[in-house]
This record gives sequence, C-alpha cells and structure tokens, in this order.
Amino acid sequence: MRLCQTLTAEDCAAQSMTYASPAKWHLAHTTWFFETFLLSGQDSGYGVFHPRFEYLFNSYYESVGAPFPRPDRGLLTRPSLDEVGQYRAHVDAAVTALLDDPGRLADELLDIALLGLHHEQQHQELLLTDIKHLFAQNPLRPAYRATKQSGSTPIRSLEWHAFDSGLVEIGHESAGFAFDNESPRHRVFLEDYALASRAIRNGEFAAFIEDGGYARRELWLAEGFAKLREGAWRAPLYWVRHDEKWWAFTLAGLRPLRMEEPVCHVSFYEADAFARWAGCRLPSEAEWENAAACTSVEGNFLEAGHFHPEAAQGGADRDGPLQLFGDVWEWTSSAYHPYPGFRIAEDALGEYNGKFMSNQMVLRGGSCVSPRSHLRATYRNFFHPDARWQFSGIRLARDH
Amino acid sequence: MRLCQTLTAEDCAAQSMTYASPAKWHLAHTTWFFETFLLSGQDSGYGVFHPRFEYLFNSYYESVGAPFPRPDRGLLTRPSLDEVGQYRAHVDAAVTALLDDPGRLADELLDIALLGLHHEQQHQELLLTDIKHLFAQNPLRPAYRATKQSGSTPIRSLEWHAFDSGLVEIGHESAGFAFDNESPRHRVFLEDYALASRAIRNGEFAAFIEDGGYARRELWLAEGFAKLREGAWRAPLYWVRHDEKWWAFTLAGLRPLRMEEPVCHVSFYEADAFARWAGCRLPSEAEWENAAACTSVEGNFLEAGHFHPEAAQGGADRDGPLQLFGDVWEWTSSAYHPYPGFRIAEDALGEYNGKFMSNQMVLRGGSCVSPRSHLRATYRNFFHPDARWQFSGIRLARDH
Amino acid sequence: MRLCQTLTAEDCAAQSMTYASPAKWHLAHTTWFFETFLLSGQDSGYGVFHPRFEYLFNSYYESVGAPFPRPDRGLLTRPSLDEVGQYRAHVDAAVTALLDDPGRLADELLDIALLGLHHEQQHQELLLTDIKHLFAQNPLRPAYRATKQSGSTPIRSLEWHAFDSGLVEIGHESAGFAFDNESPRHRVFLEDYALASRAIRNGEFAAFIEDGGYARRELWLAEGFAKLREGAWRAPLYWVRHDEKWWAFTLAGLRPLRMEEPVCHVSFYEADAFARWAGCRLPSEAEWENAAACTSVEGNFLEAGHFHPEAAQGGADRDGPLQLFGDVWEWTSSAYHPYPGFRIAEDALGEYNGKFMSNQMVLRGGSCVSPRSHLRATYRNFFHPDARWQFSGIRLARDH
Amino acid sequence: MRLCQTLTAEDCAAQSMTYASPAKWHLAHTTWFFETFLLSGQDSGYGVFHPRFEYLFNSYYESVGAPFPRPDRGLLTRPSLDEVGQYRAHVDAAVTALLDDPGRLADELLDIALLGLHHEQQHQELLLTDIKHLFAQNPLRPAYRATKQSGSTPIRSLEWHAFDSGLVEIGHESAGFAFDNESPRHRVFLEDYALASRAIRNGEFAAFIEDGGYARRELWLAEGFAKLREGAWRAPLYWVRHDEKWWAFTLAGLRPLRMEEPVCHVSFYEADAFARWAGCRLPSEAEWENAAACTSVEGNFLEAGHFHPEAAQGGADRDGPLQLFGDVWEWTSSAYHPYPGFRIAEDALGEYNGKFMSNQMVLRGGSCVSPRSHLRATYRNFFHPDARWQFSGIRLARDH
Repeated sequence: MRLCQTLTAEDCAAQSMTYASPAKWHLAHTTWFFETFLLSGQDSGYGVFHPRFEYLFNSYYESVGAPFPRPDRGLLTRPSLDEVGQYRAHVDAAVTALLDDPGRLADELLDIALLGLHHEQQHQELLLTDIKHLFAQNPLRPAYRATKQSGSTPIRSLEWHAFDSGLVEIGHESAGFAFDNESPRHRVFLEDYALASRAIRNGEFAAFIEDGGYARRELWLAEGFAKLREGAWRAPLYWVRHDEKWWAFTLAGLRPLRMEEPVCHVSFYEADAFARWAGCRLPSEAEWENAAACTSVEGNFLEAGHFHPEAAQGGADRDGPLQLFGDVWEWTSSAYHPYPGFRIAEDALGEYNGKFMSNQMVLRGGSCVSPRSHLRATYRNFFHPDARWQFSGIRLARDH
Repeated sequence: MRLCQTLTAEDCAAQSMTYASPAKWHLAHTTWFFETFLLSGQDSGYGVFHPRFEYLFNSYYESVGAPFPRPDRGLLTRPSLDEVGQYRAHVDAAVTALLDDPGRLADELLDIALLGLHHEQQHQELLLTDIKHLFAQNPLRPAYRATKQSGSTPIRSLEWHAFDSGLVEIGHESAGFAFDNESPRHRVFLEDYALASRAIRNGEFAAFIEDGGYARRELWLAEGFAKLREGAWRAPLYWVRHDEKWWAFTLAGLRPLRMEEPVCHVSFYEADAFARWAGCRLPSEAEWENAAACTSVEGNFLEAGHFHPEAAQGGADRDGPLQLFGDVWEWTSSAYHPYPGFRIAEDALGEYNGKFMSNQMVLRGGSCVSPRSHLRATYRNFFHPDARWQFSGIRLARDH
Repeated sequence: MRLCQTLTAEDCAAQSMTYASPAKWHLAHTTWFFETFLLSGQDSGYGVFHPRFEYLFNSYYESVGAPFPRPDRGLLTRPSLDEVGQYRAHVDAAVTALLDDPGRLADELLDIALLGLHHEQQHQELLLTDIKHLFAQNPLRPAYRATKQSGSTPIRSLEWHAFDSGLVEIGHESAGFAFDNESPRHRVFLEDYALASRAIRNGEFAAFIEDGGYARRELWLAEGFAKLREGAWRAPLYWVRHDEKWWAFTLAGLRPLRMEEPVCHVSFYEADAFARWAGCRLPSEAEWENAAACTSVEGNFLEAGHFHPEAAQGGADRDGPLQLFGDVWEWTSSAYHPYPGFRIAEDALGEYNGKFMSNQMVLRGGSCVSPRSHLRATYRNFFHPDARWQFSGIRLARDH
Repeated sequence: MRLCQTLTAEDCAAQSMTYASPAKWHLAHTTWFFETFLLSGQDSGYGVFHPRFEYLFNSYYESVGAPFPRPDRGLLTRPSLDEVGQYRAHVDAAVTALLDDPGRLADELLDIALLGLHHEQQHQELLLTDIKHLFAQNPLRPAYRATKQSGSTPIRSLEWHAFDSGLVEIGHESAGFAFDNESPRHRVFLEDYALASRAIRNGEFAAFIEDGGYARRELWLAEGFAKLREGAWRAPLYWVRHDEKWWAFTLAGLRPLRMEEPVCHVSFYEADAFARWAGCRLPSEAEWENAAACTSVEGNFLEAGHFHPEAAQGGADRDGPLQLFGDVWEWTSSAYHPYPGFRIAEDALGEYNGKFMSNQMVLRGGSCVSPRSHLRATYRNFFHPDARWQFSGIRLARDH
C-alpha cells in the first residue's frame, strides 16, 4: 500500500499491455492469494469479503476456476481502489488472527503464509515495473516519485573473475524459504569460465548502438532480429532520443541518460547480441549461481528508494564480481527448465512455477525494485526472451 | 459534467475498446474543440491551459497535427479527472467572455461556437454508450444510475403507413443549424412504400431468435454472417441468457428483458436479417426522412432520464409512424455517402464528416441518450454495419 | 480452355491470394456450376464425374453445402489439370446432349444454361486478372502472352459531356439476359451533371503522384488513407519504379509505362482521391448508365487480344463520351445495394448476387479482358473499395 | 529426384504452409547451395545457370542477400519443374568436374561439398514431410506412394534400461562429418536415470486421449495448453476420426490406425503432457546421447521405403533400448542451445545452425524418412515445441 501512496486511483486502475497489470489488481490479487489458499480452506468460519473477487483476482490458477481475462484487467473500474483497500484490511485482519492463534497454525499453513509473503514481494516489484510501463505511454511523462540520485562515481573498469572447471552443486537445500523451481539441489559440471566484474553500463551499450549493433544481423539470433524489426527497436526500452542526446524515462521522470549506470530494460535478444558483439557470451545460470554462492546479498534494492540502477560501487580490493545482486536482473543463457528431479506439487499451488517452463529464459540476481529479503543466490526469475519492461540488464561471461 | 456525477475517477479513465473512449477523454476533447477552433485562432491573448493537451485530446483532425493513438486513450491516467474539470472551467470562462463581447464575435466565430455545442451533444451520447460498454465488461455489473422504469404498457400492434411515389426533397435548407453532411437539399424519386408504425420490439426479435434467425445463413448478408461467426453472436449485444430467461444489461444494471421495449444494440446486419426474415426490408434514408419531415421531434430522449428505450406510446388516432425520434437510432438501407453537390469545407473543420463516407450505413432519428435539441428530420448518423454498442434498433419498411 | 493454352499445369494450380483463384479452379468451378444447377437436378440419369468435386469446386453456394476453404484452393494439386480437362469434356457432352433434346429442355433449364454461360464469362475475366496477379509475384516477371501493342496515338484532350437534370430510368427490362442485380428497372432523379469524354490516362495519374497525391491526407477518405499506409501504396498496383522511370507489369510482361493509356489497377480510394485532386468527383452509377444507355457496346475487349487497356480512339465528331465500354472498369461513387423492389430468388441461385450487397462499390463498363457479349449498359460489377487487382480505372464527373 | 518420381509438376509446386516448402523448391535450393558456396566462389569460370536463381532459392543466408519471401515459395510456378531439373543437371556436372579435378579440390572445398551433401539429405526428409502435409490438406487424400506395410508384430512390452549417474561426455569429436552444433564435445553430469525400451505406441497414446488427456490442463505446460486450444488439437496431427474409429493419413493414403506402431506427429507439448500423464518425463539430450552412444545406427529409415514408423522389432535378449534410431524423432526435454565453447563460423555458412538457438527443442535419433547415413548418436535436430508435421514421437525417461 505504501508503494501506491503517490499514485491516484486512476493510475492504479489502468493496464498498459496484456503482460502488465493495474496496481489495484496487484493489491487485490496478493490479498486474494491469502484469502484463497490460507483462509478459505479453513473451518475457521472465515467469511469471504466479496463472492466475485475469487473470480476477478485469480491470476492463472485454473484449478481454482477460470480466471477473469488477463487483457481486460484495466476495465475493472469497480471495485474501487478504496474497496480494494478495505478488502486488504479484511483479509489482513483474518490472517493476523490466524497467525496469532498457535492452536490453528499447522506447519502446512505456515508454509502457505510464507509463500504468500514471497508472492506479495514478487508483485511489489511487478507493480513498479508495470507503473513505469504505464507512465512511459503518457506524453506528459509523469514521475512516480522524485528520487535521490547518487552523485557521479568514478567508472570502474570491466575486469574478469576466473572460475575453475569442476563439478558444482546448484539449487536450494538450506532451511530457509525457496520457491519450488529452485529444487532439487543437484550437480552440474562447469568448464573453466570467467565472469565480468560488473554489469554492462549504458556507455558500453551506446557504443554497441553506434557501431550499428541494431542493424548487424550477424550479431542476432534469427527470432531476435525478427522481433527487433517488428518492434522497430533502436535502443533499450525507455531510451529516448532528443536533441541528439539520449534520455531515459525513469520512475523519477525523463532525465539525461547517465553513461555510468548499468544498462537496463534490454531483452534477452539484445543482451545476447551485445555479448556476441563484445566477443563474449552470457553466463549459464549454473555459472552465475556458482559465482554468487558465497556472495552476500547486498546492493541497490527496493528499500534504497532509488527505483533505478546505480553505477557499481565497491572497494578495489574486492574478490568477486560486484553487483550480482540488485540493480538489474541479469539474463543468463539458460532456458527455464525444471531441475533434474523436479516435481510439481499436486495441489493448486503446484501451478506456481512449473507450467511456465517453456520458451522462457532464466534471469538472476534481482533488481533495484526487488525487496532485499526476496533474493538469494539460488533464485530463478524467468521471462520470455523478448521481454523488456523488467529491470533486466547484462552480465558478460567468457570461456577461460 | 452532470452526466459524470455518478461516476468515479476510475470509471471515467477506462477505455473498453478502440471505438469507445473514456468519459474523461470525452470531457476533455469537447473542450479541446472549443479551445482549438474557437479560442486559439484569435488574437485575444488566450493562453492555452496546457501545451500538450492539443496533442492529447485531438480526435482525428490531421490538419491540426497527428493525434494521440486512439486505442491508448485509456492509458492517460494523467491529467486527472480533477485537472480535466479545471481545463473545462478555464476554457468555458474564455468562451463565455468571447460570447459576451459583441465586438469580437464575428459570424464565423458564432458558427464555430454553435458547431462546438452540437459536437459536445454528440459526445454526451457517446459518453453514455461508452460507459455502458465499459460496465458491461465488468462481472460486478455496475449500474450507471438507478432509473425510473415506466409501468407496463399495452402493446401496440404493428401497423403500416403508406407513402405515395413521387419526387421528394431531402436534406437541410432551413435557417437552423445542421451538419455539413445534411446538405445540400436535393430531389430524390421514391417509389410507393410503407413504413412500420413503430420500432421492432424485443418480443418480435426474440421470435426471430427462436426461429433460428442467427443460424439461417440465407437471411444474412455474407459479410454479416462472417461477423456473426467471428463474434459468436446469438442475440443483441447486452442480452444475457440466465436461468433460461433473457436478461438485458442496461445503464441501470442487469434486469429481466422487457418484451414490449424496442430491440436495441443490434448491428445493421442483424437489422437487415431480421427484416428479411419478416418479409420486409429496411427503409432508405430518403424514405425515412420523407416520413419524418412533418413529424415534431418528440419522444424518449436523454432529458427523460430513462437512458433506455421505452415501449411506444401515443394516441390511437395518430396519423404517422410513432417513435421516429428517440428511443433507438434506426438503421437505414443507405450507405453513408455525400449528397449530390456536397462540398467538403477547406478548413480544418472540413474533416468533420466527409472523410468517413466509406463503408458506413446511415441511421436516423436519435435515441434515448440523444439530447432532444440535437435532433431533426434531416440528421444523418452513421456507423459501420457491424457496430452494436450504440442504441441502434429496427424500423421496418416495405414496398407498397 | 483456350485462355490457358500458354499456361503450364503449375501456372494453373497456384493461388496468389485469398481473393484470387487458380486458373484450374476457374476451369473446374464453371463446369461445376453446369453440373450442379443444370444436370444434377434432372432425372436424366446424369452421372457425376467425381463425387468429391461437388465439395471441391463450390465457390460460395452454402445451400449446396459447405464449400472447400477459399484460401486453400492453391493446395489442390489433385485433380490435375488434365483431369479437370476431362471433367469439362464430360460435363460439356452432357450439357450439349441436353441442349440438343428439345423435349427435355424446359424454359427454366434454358435460363440456367444461359446463366451458366454468363457465369463462365465472368470467370474468363477473373482467370486473367488472377494470372496477372500471380505472375506479378514472380521476380522472373513471366509474360502470359506476347501481345500486339497498338502504335502510339495522338492524345485526346479531356472534354466534358453535359447531361440535363431530370427523372431517368435505369436497370434492366429488355428481353435479353441480365443478372438479378440489374433489376428492377426504376426511376432515379439526376441533377445536371457532366461526364469526362474518356478515362483518365497514366500521364494524368502520374501528375497526381508527382503532386504528392499519395501523401496528402486531405484528398483521401479516412479508410482509404489507412489502407494506403497499411499497403505502402505509392502508385497503382503493377507500376514499378526502375531507373527513375515508371514501368508497368502487364500480361505481356514488364514494359515501360505508356502515358497515353488509361490508368488501371487503382482502388476506389485512389480513384476517389484523384477525382478530389482534380476538382471533380466520380459519377454515380445512375449518371453513368444514363450516359451509356444509348451507346453501342464497342471498345477494347477480351476478343481484341490486347489484354491491356489502350489509348482512347474515336472520331472527333463523336457525340458522347468515349471508352465507356472496355479498356477499364470505371469506379462509381455508388455503394453496391439492391435496387428498389429487388427480390432475392428463393432457390440456390438466389445466392448469386444479393448476399454481397455490403461494403462494396459499383463499377461499370467492362474491361480489356471482359468478353464483349458479356457487357451491357445496365451491367453492375462490384468490388471492395480497396481492391486493385481488377482492370479498374477512373472516369471523372462533375456538377454542371 | 527419385523422391519426386511419383509426383506431378503441380504437386511439386504447391506450398501448404509457411514452414513447409514446395518439393520443387527443395530440389532447387539444395542445388543452389552447391552453386553458391562451392562453385561461385571459384575462379573456375563457372557460369551461373540463371542470374535470378541466387535470389529465388536462397533460404535464409542473409549474408548472401535478402532471400525471396518464404511464405510465397508456392507462387513460383516458373521456373518449371523441368527447368529445375536442368538446373540440377547443370550444377551437378560442374560439381562432378570439380570433384574429379584433384588440383582444384582444396580441403576447404571438400568440406563444403560434404556439407552440401548432408544439407541435401536434410531436405530429402523435409521434402517428404512437406508433401505429406500438402496431401493431407486435400480432401481427395492422395497417396504419395503405395508402400509395403509389414505384417502385424507381437507387441513388445515397455521395459526400462537403467543408467548410472556420473560425468559423461557428449558431442562430436571423431573424424567423420558432423554439423557445427554438435561440437564441441564436453562433459555433462547425469544423475541416475532410466530410458524406456522403445518409443510410445499409438495404442498407449490412444489411452491418454481416452483418459481425457487433451482436456486435463494440469498435464500441460501453459503455452502448450494455449496452442491446443488455438489449434483445437484432439489427437496427433493426421489422426482422423471416422465411423468411431481412428484412421491415420500416411504417405500411402488414409488407413486404419495401427495401435502397435509408434505414435507420430506429436508436438513437444503433447509429448511432455503424455509423459506427465504416464508419471514419467522426457529424457534430456545428454541422457539420450549417453544411451545411444554405443548403439549402431540401425532401424527403419528412408531407404526401407516404408515412409512410416513401424512397430519395434528386435531380439528379446537385446541389451539397450530399441528404436533409438529411425522410425520417429524423439523429443527431448532440452532447449536447443549452443554447447559450452560453441563458436559460430564467421563465413556465410556460420548461419547454418547457430542463429536458430532460441525457443526450439532438441529431437534425437532420426525418423523413417531420414537417410540412414545422415544420422549419428550426436545428431541434434530441433523444432519449435508446437511443431507437429515432422515424424516426431515420444521416448519416456524417468529418474532411477
């Protein structure tokens, strides 16, 4: 709710494309998740807030019933934002009462509550990416929030961190929470490889553009080049050419592009073409996770309030790659597939991740609009290779 | 503004399809019309309210500059509804000042002001048809306004009024206001014909449905049948089958279908198929206008506050057809083409009507959401033959 | 069959777009028409050639059964062209036997046979327009047939023929054959008008292009301009820009554009925009027919073997407009609608014309690939306003 | 050329969908490959057969120039099939002369010639899959060739072959020919797994259908279920329901479905859903290759002349899985991605495989229309997960 404080009811109701949702829908859907999976199954006498909300705010859980058509979420001017706030209060109260009652709180329920919280964190990030996309369509270029922009930083040169070949383990196995798609932990053999010390900067991507990157077909996967043509891509999403300079539309409005910041809002196809142009490649998700396994989850997250990637910081003496967490999600070369031994749960929550394992690519590390506690080294995010409206950027790898 | 009193800011911002516009956009666009064509051309020192509104609220006047893309009007969460209210107040004040200053008020300006008022009346109707379409997408079935529904009426039988063949004149030529497409007045030869005494009722249309009307291809124009299939039409738009009964979604919410009311929200294709099924045909616009020429403009209009067609009333001794004005727009068999001698004006306002004279059909008479003073016997409305979201119905004709 | 003599079996099997058909399909469909409507209904013991041909070669007569999907006609590599030839011989023999047997030949059958012949003439023209479209897609630019090109002619200036206002009759009423859509003959009132003495030439259309005709939106109907953009129209179909000169693809292959020939392969939208640019308009079909009523059907038809429009010829002392028949079909300003009193026949042949009376425009006069005996002053051809692959051109009119 | 002996020129010219090509185009394109990459680069004075063929028969080698639009290949009625035969003879003669001249035959040329031969083998298979697709659209159900159908076989029960976990090597490294995408050979860690002893039979797949397999959404990947709906899939492609029995359209025409034959013409989505229904999964390509590495390439290939998968044969004492090669391509669970260390060649032939490594899945083993010498254990075929017109089937795997 705090994320919506600077938004009007009108802002919260609009949907800018099929893959984005109105902020109001995010607010209601995350509450629907608690109501449906945590409260409704109980004998506790919980009364649903509104009988039709089950239908309106289901995203894709077919086992719960056919959901309201996704492209039409922006047409739900009713319930109003106020009513959605009441819906959230109603459900929050019941959840709190449940959590406060040790007698009713079976382990299984606790697991669902935990899942509900992580699910809500995902939608916190999506709410911001979707508002950014909505505001970008508006010629008035509204700002979501004025943000503190950090001062200019000395540019860190790109260095390489080498990793030796060998059998490594990836995937989740510790006590903490993880999504189903992070399991089971399993062995993978890696050849020698090296990972870039930081994310690629706008300045480096601008050099790719100047070198004709968007016109040189040999740098692109065939389907990527077809998308480029179809969408008339000439630069990352939200870059705007004005007075012979690059500007970027941000959650703080339109501002001159800062060359030292990580490049953001590129598709997998653009990340892959850039890597080919640079004589490198993208890392596999196993290479990425192997490098990140011993790194603490620090960086530029939602809590910092920048809502925008920042230039890489960090002491010169640092051992591993910087910026693995936060700033921008990093496209990997790995298709989003089940890990060996992965099993889809048989209940409704089994629909959580598994059924999307087709035609998508894995991203790692989290972004400047991810809540910090949502992230970990084993976390697997995934989007179609042509998606650009997420805070997605580029980390290079190469054989060593 | 009064039409929006029962709507929330969220209701006023959403756009349910490309051909419909948000209520907020209607409010701003009609004001934009006055600002652009009446105020901005003057040396009067008028200051525009916002420099980007010229772009945002232009509908299709290409001579004024490329308009904001029509399908994206629902994404303009800014300016807010409040700001649009201020915009209207700002422009209204300047218009009032101009009208109050006889020295500045040339005839040409008065003509534009008058056109602006009639233009706004058109958008009053569209605002209501568009809100109805938006609310119809919402499973909560919101009501725009609770309306007084008239008591049940004895059903008037369908009678025929005969008209003799001969040379008649149609088109506008009197002193009052008319749109450019109503001129010039010209001669048309009509064969003997007869016109039905009232609009077709829901009960009659239900008989067509029960007789397999939507499945009998021989009743349909080929392109109409293709649309029927594509859209899976089984009844007029807004009819809902529930518990083996017909319901209708209205601006007062969902209610049982009243069989004595005029059928509404049918396309030209449905009107044409119904007429063929009934062994009749639709009237040409000349036949319609010839019958309406001596009829006073009385009926069920916006001002009545029903926002829904009503069963035909009227004394038994009445001479001519009833319900020619109000209740429902009546599809004619005439394509929307220029009258002989029609000239498009050379200024920006020349775009008002002429450029749409392709692939559309003429409707006559006005509806229950048309302002009464907007209508006259020569008035030509026009929509594509598959359009259903207007208050459009059926008047039968036949050779005599 | 003679029209196909220079074509290979491969040429006769391909379909270049949904609205065009393979030559083989035209050959089979016209024979199917005789088989289905003339022979199969008889007790004569006629044996169908192949039981599936009824399905394969039905065009759109739904009352006879669902037709094979139109866009897939080019996939029917079987039956082969040879088999279709045998099919034609089989049916022709049965038709001839029927026609030779006065005892069996009721008037009704004679009417169907006559309709079948006129139907076949229509497809003779379509066969050629469709082959031209097919060959135009082939970068090898194949020629259908080397044709004799007439010598260059002195260019006739454009003159105007005036017609007085008054009540005229149009439509068919004489003893000869006509299609259902030409009836009934009826009265129409015409204002004073004038008709251009000949069709518009390529040179005149090239001047429209040079004057920015395809970029000046004020000259175009809104839907026409949208089509222009969608199709990237810059000139009539089959005009090719090469070495800074215009070339035209013809049934004799690619040749330099001859400026004195009538412009051809323009849509209604282009004809309408040209007329507006020229300060004129297109004639209504009544105006056209009124002018053509006393003109004999002479001109450049299929029989001449040019397969291409020719510069207007004719004595200087001639009274009426030239080139009304032959060379190019002339777009009129009239939507294709039923004449007053038109009735669709109740049998299968009732589907012949009536169901297409929606969103199409009337063309008059016939072209250089129409058989001469197929044409008459009352003949109504019709195509969608964006169709360009027919031999369609421009005759100007204006108020007088 | 021998594959086309039973086809007419019409059969060879038609294209049934964008992804399929006319047989004539396959004939010309494979010759174009030799002409372009082997002959044209030489100083040998080779004269191209026709200057436009370079454009017409390029498939997708953008470095050689923009190719003729793929969806329009069926419109190339010229050159004729005969001319394409002459083209092939012309190029074959020049290739033979080159191969016979040791002085001119550098190693690099020999590599290209070899690649050209393997390329032609790929198109031999595609020619047959595309003809099957074309004939399937024809209601006459033409047969490509009457084939010998083997007698009925005792049905082999499905058994499991276990493989131990460990580090294995996959990919090509021996002296023989392989495509670029099979390299480099590299290490992969496999967990314990088991592979089914043979491909899934029609009878087993029919049980999946009877169990509601196509309606049970929980069995499907979300994008697979969307495709199923869009395409109204109810059974594998080419299964036809007739008289309450299943029939299959084959290259020998329509025949009753034989339950003991391997299921064929299923998409990855159907293979994946079937595996989930069976409580199993699909093998990864590494698991498959590891099992196939020691198996000789034997089975039902193109040379057998069945053009259809056959029931699994083989001695009871056999050690490994049967049918790994031939009969049907087996969908794996692996996305088609570059092997670690893969490099795209920098010349035009670098476009051969690499640029398609996006959104496709790997298939292994070859089919009943693959030439035997074209196959090997490391061979990687790839198609989009919704492709069904290839001879693609199902091999189950499971954790062990």
